[in-house]
Parts: sequence; C-alpha cells; structure tokens
Amino acid sequence: MKRNLLLTPGPTQVPPELCAALGRPIIHHRTPQFQENIKQAVEGLKELFQTKHDVYLLTSSGTGGMEAAVCNLLSPGDVAITVEGGKFGERWTELCNAYGVQARVLKVEWGKVPTADQIKAQWKANPQAKAVFITLAETSTGVTPDVAAIGEAVKGTPAVLVVDAISGLGVQEIKTDSWHCDVVVAGSQKGLMLPPGLAFVSASPKAQALIASSNNRRYYFDLREAKKAMEKIDTPFTPAIGIIIALVESLRLMKERGFDHLFKHYARLAKATRAGTKAIGLELFPQESCTTNVLTAVKVPTGIDGEKLTKTMRDTHGITFAGGQGPLKGKVIRMAHMGALDEYDVLTGLACLEKVLHEMGHKFELGAGLAAAQKVLNQK
Amino acid sequence: MKRNLLLTPGPTQVPPELCAALGRPIIHHRTPQFQENIKQAVEGLKELFQTKHDVYLLTSSGTGGMEAAVCNLLSPGDVAITVEGGKFGERWTELCNAYGVQARVLKVEWGKVPTADQIKAQWKANPQAKAVFITLAETSTGVTPDVAAIGEAVKGTPAVLVVDAISGLGVQEIKTDSWHCDVVVAGSQKGLMLPPGLAFVSASPKAQALIASSNNRRYYFDLREAKKAMEKIDTPFTPAIGIIIALVESLRLMKERGFDHLFKHYARLAKATRAGTKAIGLELFPQESCTTNVLTAVKVPTGIDGEKLTKTMRDTHGITFAGGQGPLKGKVIRMAHMGALDEYDVLTGLACLEKVLHEMGHKFELGAGLAAAQKVLNQK
Repeated sequence: MKRNLLLTPGPTQVPPELCAALGRPIIHHRTPQFQENIKQAVEGLKELFQTKHDVYLLTSSGTGGMEAAVCNLLSPGDVAITVEGGKFGERWTELCNAYGVQARVLKVEWGKVPTADQIKAQWKANPQAKAVFITLAETSTGVTPDVAAIGEAVKGTPAVLVVDAISGLGVQEIKTDSWHCDVVVAGSQKGLMLPPGLAFVSASPKAQALIASSNNRRYYFDLREAKKAMEKIDTPFTPAIGIIIALVESLRLMKERGFDHLFKHYARLAKATRAGTKAIGLELFPQESCTTNVLTAVKVPTGIDGEKLTKTMRDTHGITFAGGQGPLKGKVIRMAHMGALDEYDVLTGLACLEKVLHEMGHKFELGAGLAAAQKVLNQK
Repeated sequence: MKRNLLLTPGPTQVPPELCAALGRPIIHHRTPQFQENIKQAVEGLKELFQTKHDVYLLTSSGTGGMEAAVCNLLSPGDVAITVEGGKFGERWTELCNAYGVQARVLKVEWGKVPTADQIKAQWKANPQAKAVFITLAETSTGVTPDVAAIGEAVKGTPAVLVVDAISGLGVQEIKTDSWHCDVVVAGSQKGLMLPPGLAFVSASPKAQALIASSNNRRYYFDLREAKKAMEKIDTPFTPAIGIIIALVESLRLMKERGFDHLFKHYARLAKATRAGTKAIGLELFPQESCTTNVLTAVKVPTGIDGEKLTKTMRDTHGITFAGGQGPLKGKVIRMAHMGALDEYDVLTGLACLEKVLHEMGHKFELGAGLAAAQKVLNQK
C-alpha cells in the first residue's frame, strides 16, 4: 500500500476516530437530537476561539465564511483596509471588489507581515474605513502577524478587525475577545482535522452593529438569519450534518489533549522542520521573526524543479507537500504542521524530501535533515 | 437499540456503503487523484440530469445552489417569474427579493401546481421577464408540475427556465435538455443518499449567456469562476472533498441499479404509501393528479395533534416523518420516498404511524394500512 500522508495546509489528515464519526448515521437537523450536536459544537468552538460572543456555522468552504464577513459588515461604497502580502490576504481585496467595497490596500512584501504601526498609519490615511482585514496564518508565505498588537491598534477606531483564521484555528492560538478581533473566520479542514465543508464565523457586538446596518445583497450567507437561527439552536438552511457530528468529536478529542498542549505540539513540529530543512541546505522563505508554526515554507534550491519535486513525492511516494502559489509557483515548498500529525509524520516527510532531493541532484549529507529534526524533537 | 429510520424529505438515510465511503482518507483536492473523482462525479451527474451541458459542484446546501442561479442569471432591476404554492417556491421569491430582482409571483393554491398555460399567461403579462423559477418536487405540499410542458411553453421566450430539483433528482425523472430546463439545481442529501453539503447546478448555453451578462455582486457562488475551474477539472475553492468521493460511489451504486429502475421503485413505494394511509382514513393533502412520488403528504385527522404524532414516532420509536411547514404546521405529515429506502421501510413507517395514531385515539382497523400497502407492493 502506498502511504497517503498529507502535509498540506488544508485539507489535513482526518484521523481514524473522525473518519468513523463521519460514517455515523445521519440524523435529521430539525430535531432535539441534532440540536445537542449544534450546542456542543458551538460551545467547543467558542472555547477554541476564546470568545464569549456568537459563533455561526456555515455550510461552505472557508471562503464562504470570508464572503459572509465582507457582505454582512460592509455596504457598497464603504471603505476597508486590506493587507496584501500573500494569496489569502489578496482574497480579502478580491471579496471587497466583488461587493463594491473600496479596498485601501496595504502592500507588504511576500514573506513579511503587516505591523500594528503600519495598520494604524493605513487607518489614519483612511479614517472612514469601516473594517480592517488580516490573515492569522498566511499559508502562501508561512507568516503570522502580531494580531494582539494589531487588535490594540484597531480597537480605538470605529473600524472592526476581521481575521481570516482558516488555517490557524486549533494550530496556533487566537484570543478573539482579548485581542479585540471582531470577526474571526475559520474552517473545518485545517486544525480541526475534518473534511472541508464547514466554515465558522464569530461576531463581536461591534461587528453585530455593522451587520445590522449593511445593505449588501445576501441570503445564504446572511448572518442576521444565522443569528436568529442560532437563538433557537438551529441553522437557516440544512447544514453539513455529518461534518457537524464529527466536529463535536473532533473538539472533544482536542480538548482532551488540551488546546494549549496542541499549540505547543505544533510549535515543536515546526521548529523541528525548520531545523531539518536548514540542515539539508534549504533556506526558509519568510522572514524568520514572523514565521508561523502552521506551516514551513522553504525555497526550492537553485537548479531543482520545484513542481517536479512535489509531484514525485506525491505520486511516487504518497507524501503530499504543497508547492508555491501565484508568484511562488515552483519556487517554494510548503509543509504544514496542522491537524492529526505527530513527530514521526514530520520525520517521514523530511525523509521523503531528502530522498527525492538527493535523486534530483541536490548536494547534502543524506540523513542530516532527519538528525537535526530528531535533536529538536528530543530537546527537554 | 432504537431504530433510526429517516422518512424525511432530506436528509435521507445514508446506506452503509456510503457511510464507509465518507470515512475514507481525505486526499488533497488539487491533485490528479482527486481530479479523477471530480470527473466521475460530473459525468455521473450529467447522466442523471440528462444534460450534455456543464454541471457545477458547489460546496453548500441546496439553497446555495438556488442563490447561485439567482445571482448569476439576473441583475438588480431585472424581472423574473416565480411560483408560490409551497415553501420552496417561496424561496425563489425570497432570493429574487434579496438580489434586487422584481419577482412577478404566480400564486397557486397549496397542494396544486402551476400549469404550462398559467406560466405562459404570466410570461405574456411580463414579457420582460428574464427567468421563470419552478420547483420539481414541492416537498412542503407533495406535488410536481408538468416540467416538460412548462419547458415547452418557456423555450420560445427569451426567458430561461430554472428548476429547483433539490428534492427530486434521483427520485423522479428530470430530462434537463429535452425538457428545455436551462438551469437545474440539486443537492447531495436527497436522492443521492449523502449527507448535506454539496449543491449541483447545470447551465444551458441560453443560461450561460445570462450568466455572462449579469452584474449582480457575487464571489463564492460565481458560476463564471466555476466554469473556468471546471475546464481544468477543478473547483474555485476547496470543495467538500469527502462528500465528492462518496458521490462517485453513490452514482456508481445508482447506475448499477439503473436510474429508470429507481424511479419505478420510488413510484411503487409512493403508491403503497398512498394506499396504506388511505386505508386508515388519512386523506391525501395535495390534489391527486399532481402528486409527486418523492413524498406523500397526508392530512392529520381532526382531533389529533399532528406535532405530538411526529414527535412520538421520532422520540419513542426512532422513526422520523416530517410534519407540516408554514401554514401546514401541525396539519399534515409527510413521508418521503427517496434515497436508500425499500418496501420494508415503508411498511415499518406505516406500522409505526398506525401504532401511534391508534394510541392517540384515531379510529381505524389496526393493520388495514399495512395490508393495503402490502397489496400494492405485491402487484405484478
């Protein structure tokens, strides 16, 4: 049997316990039996989001959750601040454009992050901005900004802070309320170890006020309806029942392990991966000071075909890394540290990377990456 | 163990073969391995839709597919014809209202259907209408219109015919191309026996022309992007991978059995249910001539609390029927004939209905419903 190891930044591996939960009999969604699932899922998510406010369940991929944020908070003609320093930051701009919102884009070099000072300056130049959109873990480049500091900078303004935490939730910490994040968007297929199909959106009271006043056209993603339904422990439309049932199980497993423990676990895997790749001569793509633990992006060595590298690992060895996106296509490889992965998966990924790089002619000492990673993994 | 029998018009029962498929390991969506799944799913759907044109996969519940039809075909200020004779017909009007489209509503008494002549007259009164929205199986009342005749009436006009086949696809026939249906919307959690989370939208060349000219704001449900992605056997955003993998399996099972065979199978179950309920003194809610085989809606007998009836069947016996919606709340009960159900499930449902009606004081001969259904089920 060929291995099927996903080291991609979503979808992540679904562990057997959750595969089994996904295969449970479907129950009808408008029953007390299913309401118990909604209740437990939302309670668990609130704990993971670290929020006391509403968290809504939307049946869509993460982008649907991002769309819900834009079309519910803003009206055509409104101004908003977006940050472009990677593919997912650009998605906020695209969504603003699609919904008639004027995006005042803060450009950041790919591999770097926006600072709180830059956001503050961008807001001062655009004080009419109603929202600031950022990304918790920009997986196209491998960085994470200081969300707490940005939250501090935005909280005194009339603007809401909206965070795409799709790739971050459950892998690195987000303190929604105490960091003053008004809307946080996440999805099922990353840290929560489930298949794609569910998005989560939190909303602070400051966000609720904007949601009530937006006149953008919306129906399926209308958060006013989601709020009304949530008050009755319901969803406006038939939800992804199977994934919600498995989500209850996923949150239970994660809580049993401890959310804090998980954040440390992924940080350790990321540190080992950085050490392992460095030891075989691969250079980290992002600026080291703002690297996320959600994934490691390294440059493809000169003379090596990056697309062939990931293709061979996947098709010949069954180990899937992500390649580069947009301007980074063929130039970086990305290894995620999220979901149901342990230290042996990281070593397996590095072993395969060594094997294929060696076959492709990259010069390094075979085993050096594994040894370096192993040292980090066994530090006290 | 309490039984968990779903006789509801969505979600339907997921058979064990598909439960197992839902628990398979997740593969990354941007790989040749997953493209093979998209290809097979779309090919199978085209066969079931009876269309040669595109069918797009959207990660959402059925309503998301309906929204995609409205926001892609029409622009604010456009005129469209909707039919209100049940809850799902009304949803088309609500969607038009949400997207700034002027709905010219054809009102039909609940339990009846719009005729081709009525649609034609409605179009003559509103010749600027760009779309006609109908429902294949209106599950709130249990009826199905003559879609072929309506298609014939609409085809000579500049308007497109849009059919909500969410509850019908795979249960009763729809001939998308030869009935001149320009857009057909369906979902995973009905005839296809899967959990909710995927919607399907077909588009004829006449529909594609409107999609290209609409200026409604849209992003997640933008069918122009779905078309571009489909040309590369891809989806614009991370799809519900797990459900697509199981969809390939579901279509394989259905094809093995034969689509035509399935339509006859459900017609037989519906006929038996009508006979069984009649034999215990329950009156059919819809006009008999336009009854759908997708589900049977019968009136709750005078003096019986309809909500208590369905609640007792579900909570005490584990057998879930649907109650009435909107103005029919408490007044009808609805038994679906869709998905993984056989004649013994129908008899089980009738037996439980007899038992609880008997306990609640409804007068009839115990077993009369079962006997009448059994006779129909064993007709040559």
